[in-house]
Amino acid sequence: MSKPRPTSPIPVLAVVGVGLIGGSFAAALRQAGRVGRVLGVGRNPQSLQRACELGLIDEAVDAAEAARRADLVMLAAPVGSLARLWAEMRPHLKPGIVLTDAGSTKAEVVQAARAALGDRIGCFVPGHPIAGAERTGPEAADAGLYRGRTVVLCPLPENAPQDVEFVRQAWALCGACLVDMEAGLHDRVLASVSHMPHFLAAVYMAQVAGEPDAAQRLAMAGSGFRDFTRIAAGSPEMWRDIFISNRAAMQTELAAVRAVLDRAEAAIAAGDGAALQALLEHASQARRNWKLAGPTESPESS
Amino acid sequence: MSKPRPTSPIPVLAVVGVGLIGGSFAAALRQAGRVGRVLGVGRNPQSLQRACELGLIDEAVDAAEAARRADLVMLAAPVGSLARLWAEMRPHLKPGIVLTDAGSTKAEVVQAARAALGDRIGCFVPGHPIAGAERTGPEAADAGLYRGRTVVLCPLPENAPQDVEFVRQAWALCGACLVDMEAGLHDRVLASVSHMPHFLAAVYMAQVAGEPDAAQRLAMAGSGFRDFTRIAAGSPEMWRDIFISNRAAMQTELAAVRAVLDRAEAAIAAGDGAALQALLEHASQARRNWKLAGPTESPESS
Repeated sequence: MSKPRPTSPIPVLAVVGVGLIGGSFAAALRQAGRVGRVLGVGRNPQSLQRACELGLIDEAVDAAEAARRADLVMLAAPVGSLARLWAEMRPHLKPGIVLTDAGSTKAEVVQAARAALGDRIGCFVPGHPIAGAERTGPEAADAGLYRGRTVVLCPLPENAPQDVEFVRQAWALCGACLVDMEAGLHDRVLASVSHMPHFLAAVYMAQVAGEPDAAQRLAMAGSGFRDFTRIAAGSPEMWRDIFISNRAAMQTELAAVRAVLDRAEAAIAAGDGAALQALLEHASQARRNWKLAGPTESPESS
Repeated sequence: MSKPRPTSPIPVLAVVGVGLIGGSFAAALRQAGRVGRVLGVGRNPQSLQRACELGLIDEAVDAAEAARRADLVMLAAPVGSLARLWAEMRPHLKPGIVLTDAGSTKAEVVQAARAALGDRIGCFVPGHPIAGAERTGPEAADAGLYRGRTVVLCPLPENAPQDVEFVRQAWALCGACLVDMEAGLHDRVLASVSHMPHFLAAVYMAQVAGEPDAAQRLAMAGSGFRDFTRIAAGSPEMWRDIFISNRAAMQTELAAVRAVLDRAEAAIAAGDGAALQALLEHASQARRNWKLAGPTESPESS
C-alpha cells in the first residue's frame, strides 16, 4: 500500500453512474476541495436530478460530452455496460483525459476496454474500490465511504506513469489505501472473498424465500441470519454482471467450496463429531484471527 | 406471542453453563429483582470463578447440588452434554423443581430428556432463546441480551401448566417474546434460518482459510465478507452438537440449498444473465422485505 501524495487539482470530473460508488467518489473529492466541476452521466433521469439536488454533481451530460470535457472520468456503472460506454466515448475523448473504473472484475473489463478504446487504451487505468455496495442510489453516496478502505489499481503496460499517479492521487484524496495487483490475480482473489460470499448469500436467501413456509421461517430468523444475508440485498443487475464477467474464477472457487461442503455434509451424515469439530475449529479460529482493514465502524443494520 | 404476565419470584436459580446464554439469563433475572440465590454449574473452574466475580452467580456447585437446591434450572450447556447432566441430576431432583434448557435443537433433546429423566420428565420444559451466540464466556453475559428476542417453548404433554407458566414468566422477565412450537417443527424451521447459515458460513470460511494463498485473500476481504462470516466464529463444540443433533433436518435443507446452488451455477456457466438476474432479484427482494423481530440495535463488529 502506498501513502497519499501531494495531489493535483481535477478541473472537471465526470462520474458515470451517480449512485453509491460514483456519488461517493464525487462527494469525497468535492469535500477535499480539489475538484472543479462535476459532470454526471446516467441512464436514470431521476437519479441524475437527485444527484444534482444533493450536490453530488453540477450537471447531467451524456457520455460523449463527458468524454469531450472531463479531465478524469470515473466509470461507476455495471461491468456489463462498460463496453457500450467506451464505444460512445471513444470518438470524443479529450487529449490528456484519464478514465478509470470501479468494476468488481478486472480481466474481462480490461479486454473489453482494449477492444473498445483501441489505440487510446493507455488513457484507461483500471481500478476497484473494495467498499460495501448493498445500498444503492445517490442518497447512499457518502464522502467517507472510502476512508481507510482498500482500492486496487491494475495499471496497464500502456498507461503513462503520470496517469496512474493521477488516479492514485484521486483515491488518496478519498482516504483510500491503494494496492496494485495484476488483473487476473485480482479476479481470483475477489472471486474468493467478495463474489463468493455474495453468491452464496443470494443462493441461500433465494432458497429460503422460495419455500412454501417461507413466512414462518423468516419470522424465526435472528441476528445470525441478518448478518449472513445482508449482502443478498445487493443490486441484482450489478452482481449478475460480476458473476458472469468473472465466471471462470467463480467456477474454480465454487468447486473448492463444494469440496469442503461435501466433507462437512458427510461428517454430519455419519455423525462424525470429531471431523465436524475440526472443520468448525478451523473456520472459527480463522475468523477470529481475521480483521477488516481500515476503520471498523459498525455496519448498518438493514 | 404472549404478553409478559405478573411474575412469581425464583428463590434459587441454577444456571448450568455460565457463558453468554446462561450468564445473560441469570443477569437479566437478577436485574429484574425476582431471583434470590444464583447457583452456577460448569466444567471450567476459571469460568465459574469469573462468573462469581462478575456477580452472575453467587456460588459454584455441581449438577447434583443444583438439582437438590434450585427451584428453576436453566441448562445452557452444549446439546451433546445434556444427557449426562440429566443423569447426574435425576436422583437428586427437589420436589417441584422446574428444568428448562436453551438448546438450539429440540426433538433429540426431548428424546434424551425422556430417556434420562423417566417419570420425572414432566419437570422439564424445553426452550430455545433465539439470540446471537458468537461471543462466548461469562464476560459476554448481558442482562439485555434477550430483550425483544424470540424465545421458543416446546411444552410437553407431561408438563404441568403452572410449570410451563413459571418458565414463561422467567423469560418474560428477561424481556423476551414467547412463542410455542412443536419440537419437530422448531427443528425444521431452525435448520433453515439458523443452523444452515452457520453451516454455510463455517464451510466457506474453512475453504478460504485452507487455501495456500489464504493470507493474500483475507487481506482483500471487505465488509461483505465480515458480515457473511461473522457467525463462523461461533463455538465449534456448540455447533458440532447442533448440526449432528439436527442432522435429518439439516440434510433436507442442504439438499434444497444445493438445488438452488446448482441452478445458479448453471446460469453462470451458461452466461445466462436473465436466469441469474431472476434468482438474484428474488433473493434481493426477499432480503429487503425481511425485518428482524425485536429491537434493531446494530450488531457488534468482530
